Amino acid sequence: MKFEGSHILSVSQFDREAIEKVFTIANQMLPYAKRQKRTTVLDGAILGNLFFEPSTRTRVSFGSAFNLLGGDVRETTGMSNSALAKGESLYDTARVLSGYSDIIAMRHPVSGSVAEFAEGSRVPVLNGGDGANEHPTQALLDLYTIQKELTYHGGNIDGMHIAMIGDLKYGRTVHSLSKLLCLFKNIRFTLISPKELAMPTAIIAAIENAGHRYTITEQLEGYLDADICYQTRIQEERFPSQEEANQYRGKFRLNQSIYTKHFQSKTVIMHPLPRDSRAEANELDNDLNLNPNLAIFRQTDNGVLVRMALFALTLGVEGIVHKFDRDVHWHVKN
Amino acid sequence: MKFEGSHILSVSQFDREAIEKVFTIANQMLPYAKRQKRTTVLDGAILGNLFFEPSTRTRVSFGSAFNLLGGDVRETTGMSNSALAKGESLYDTARVLSGYSDIIAMRHPVSGSVAEFAEGSRVPVLNGGDGANEHPTQALLDLYTIQKELTYHGGNIDGMHIAMIGDLKYGRTVHSLSKLLCLFKNIRFTLISPKELAMPTAIIAAIENAGHRYTITEQLEGYLDADICYQTRIQEERFPSQEEANQYRGKFRLNQSIYTKHFQSKTVIMHPLPRDSRAEANELDNDLNLNPNLAIFRQTDNGVLVRMALFALTLGVEGIVHKFDRDVHWHVKN
Amino acid sequence: MKFEGSHILSVSQFDREAIEKVFTIANQMLPYAKRQKRTTVLDGAILGNLFFEPSTRTRVSFGSAFNLLGGDVRETTGMSNSALAKGESLYDTARVLSGYSDIIAMRHPVSGSVAEFAEGSRVPVLNGGDGANEHPTQALLDLYTIQKELTYHGGNIDGMHIAMIGDLKYGRTVHSLSKLLCLFKNIRFTLISPKELAMPTAIIAAIENAGHRYTITEQLEGYLDADICYQTRIQEERFPSQEEANQYRGKFRLNQSIYTKHFQSKTVIMHPLPRDSRAEANELDNDLNLNPNLAIFRQTDNGVLVRMALFALTLGVEGIVHKFDRDVHWHVKN
Repeated sequence: MKFEGSHILSVSQFDREAIEKVFTIANQMLPYAKRQKRTTVLDGAILGNLFFEPSTRTRVSFGSAFNLLGGDVRETTGMSNSALAKGESLYDTARVLSGYSDIIAMRHPVSGSVAEFAEGSRVPVLNGGDGANEHPTQALLDLYTIQKELTYHGGNIDGMHIAMIGDLKYGRTVHSLSKLLCLFKNIRFTLISPKELAMPTAIIAAIENAGHRYTITEQLEGYLDADICYQTRIQEERFPSQEEANQYRGKFRLNQSIYTKHFQSKTVIMHPLPRDSRAEANELDNDLNLNPNLAIFRQTDNGVLVRMALFALTLGVEGIVHKFDRDVHWHVKN
Repeated sequence: MKFEGSHILSVSQFDREAIEKVFTIANQMLPYAKRQKRTTVLDGAILGNLFFEPSTRTRVSFGSAFNLLGGDVRETTGMSNSALAKGESLYDTARVLSGYSDIIAMRHPVSGSVAEFAEGSRVPVLNGGDGANEHPTQALLDLYTIQKELTYHGGNIDGMHIAMIGDLKYGRTVHSLSKLLCLFKNIRFTLISPKELAMPTAIIAAIENAGHRYTITEQLEGYLDADICYQTRIQEERFPSQEEANQYRGKFRLNQSIYTKHFQSKTVIMHPLPRDSRAEANELDNDLNLNPNLAIFRQTDNGVLVRMALFALTLGVEGIVHKFDRDVHWHVKN
Repeated sequence: MKFEGSHILSVSQFDREAIEKVFTIANQMLPYAKRQKRTTVLDGAILGNLFFEPSTRTRVSFGSAFNLLGGDVRETTGMSNSALAKGESLYDTARVLSGYSDIIAMRHPVSGSVAEFAEGSRVPVLNGGDGANEHPTQALLDLYTIQKELTYHGGNIDGMHIAMIGDLKYGRTVHSLSKLLCLFKNIRFTLISPKELAMPTAIIAAIENAGHRYTITEQLEGYLDADICYQTRIQEERFPSQEEANQYRGKFRLNQSIYTKHFQSKTVIMHPLPRDSRAEANELDNDLNLNPNLAIFRQTDNGVLVRMALFALTLGVEGIVHKFDRDVHWHVKN
């Protein structure tokens, strides 16, 4: 996979070598993200951060990642209603706005719209989520987190055991993550969901095809020796009734005592966030905040590293980031 | 015309010398806009980018132009409803917000409001469009594009032939462009519009007064040896009925075969954008995208150069931009 | 009071020494804010400017202050509706967003929410207003302005006479300012308001407790030798009827002739802004714009200095700002 000048639209663009390239560069970004060093390698570059659908955390994560490399950010939020209402095509919008920036991160509510936009763009476009379709930087930061957490515990993605819990039918993140995991070897999947919210057969087929093992179950049962527990949100709006949704929710609630019963003491807990903290949902109880294996905030922190890596790779500066180092004059204590 | 410290509110401020000054500086901005060099001449300067009426492309163009000179941008979009609802005057708003920036670009839905704002401002204000009144940077980028395109073909603004098509009554851009063209010599105008959408008599009078020639016609007829074809959008919302609007639209549709019939092979096609790509309008068909004389995206690209020039001139740094050059560490391939 | 790494949530955190520290640093910020020098001490630092409730002036003031120290700003305006609608806690939002920045300025409509947010944040949080509760940077800029204005006239906060006028019941700014003034000595308060809008008894008690003198009155009477006249907006929305509100308004209108009758020629006029310029309110007539003691715009200008000082102090760079000086290449004439 050639990164420089390329759009990043889908996880299907990535092979294992490309993933390892992203992760290697993401690792190198750590001292800059932690403010131990400052780089200005993208001095003068402009990110067009186009969030036609709101998403505070993804938008700010992209923007901060670009600032951390020394670039500037020009931001657009909400539908550009004037131009669209006047009948402008995505191609025209892309051609015009790409003349104002060096790279674009874009979210849009319509599936396929980011790829359509990319055809009109003169600069690389990074998909920040296009409806139910793709959100490749989320999948990459999830996989990057898995690798880092497993490495910390002396493990590895090849051969690991991952439990995915909750809404596996509609959850875009578990689909994309599963696709990326098909590039690895000998993984065990435990897929826990109500029958109505089971993992789609196409994803199951891909898992089988990659030679992985899987178990499908409707509830958390017995002790699982999973390395990773990937919890998701039950999307109540998709259910025929609130009562039914609440019934499912009850089953997949996770707290410290449920965790202790079903998982290893070192099982890493992940979630794409936001987690629903209301009592009737509470898919990850706040008592897990004290659990050192709760990796949900390390996921969002890692997102900055992965996005920095993608910016550096698509702009072709991954090898020279360190040449523009400066000292940091201030220090955050955390 | 003295630029440094001045507001840019109207095309009527410009004489021919001032226009040539802007264009000379805009030309010098090209290597910075193309990322062949980086300047930080406006290091530490802050643009207050105040878009009380939304306009993605104009807003981002101003912001990127300022970033390309090394400055920072603080942005406000939408009506500042809290303060206005509490009865604050534009004077007070201007006085306060101008204390937070070194220069202001502003769009507002009400005619005359930008000039009113400028009276309270302590820093130069650039009009980014005030309702039906003025949008001087659009007129300047149109004229700059005409000059560049004609120069490319060995021509000149003086003595050229421009065809303006479509809604010449309500189109703010053709009015302002015509006013600027009155500073030049011996121009031929072919004004093509339905009678109901004809160019206002005040503009016609100005054209006559400048010694230019003009032809008024209700439809594209025969072969025109125009150097520039400036197409506009038919503004359907102003018509008594949708049917009537559609009827006009049909007449002024432009595609490659109509272009070939009426224009020279080197006639430059312009449009203020956005163009309406819906089938019922389609004022510039996508088959023109392959026509090398379709200049509509060069117009928006040129907008960045013109706005950079205006920032440099009003802040008095046009002569020292090159003194703060750096290498660019990354390169966009386009 | 230790600033470095601390949240700034309430005026009650400040003792007199802390206030003097802020003001000393704010004074040192003047050449940077006036563009006589440029500092880049916060090069690479990111401000998360989170305005969950809109406030153009406060938001831009924070953002510009951070830019003036060399930092970048990532901004969020409006309620982050997606995440909140999905049941995310303020703790989670804070933990995630604080991973994208080095310091946060935040406004939120709900009292106490900024403090709640701060508990989840990994970086210092500056309260930019949480509903009816606190707006400490406004109180500090008011007090800073009083000190500067009195110093100019050869006076001092200790021993001064301040008249507060208008809505003293609901006005958050006069409450916070009064609390800060309780750290000083021998102040005289003249509290002028309709009985229904009198200063709350808790504030009166604090004033008494600090050994200050005060007079409560329902209307401007006779000549006052006040050093400071702090006018506020009558908040019509709180009154039983518009007629009643208008009646109060009439009494507390201030213009040049009323000023001359009741105040010294050197009495400084302050207002938290926005002022209501509509005829029926007109609490500070525009004829006062020519009065050199109208300090309302010096207040907002001073706000930038105070916010720069707070950023420098909480990030621990107040002593090294001058080490990262550069020349300014452009100059605003005002």
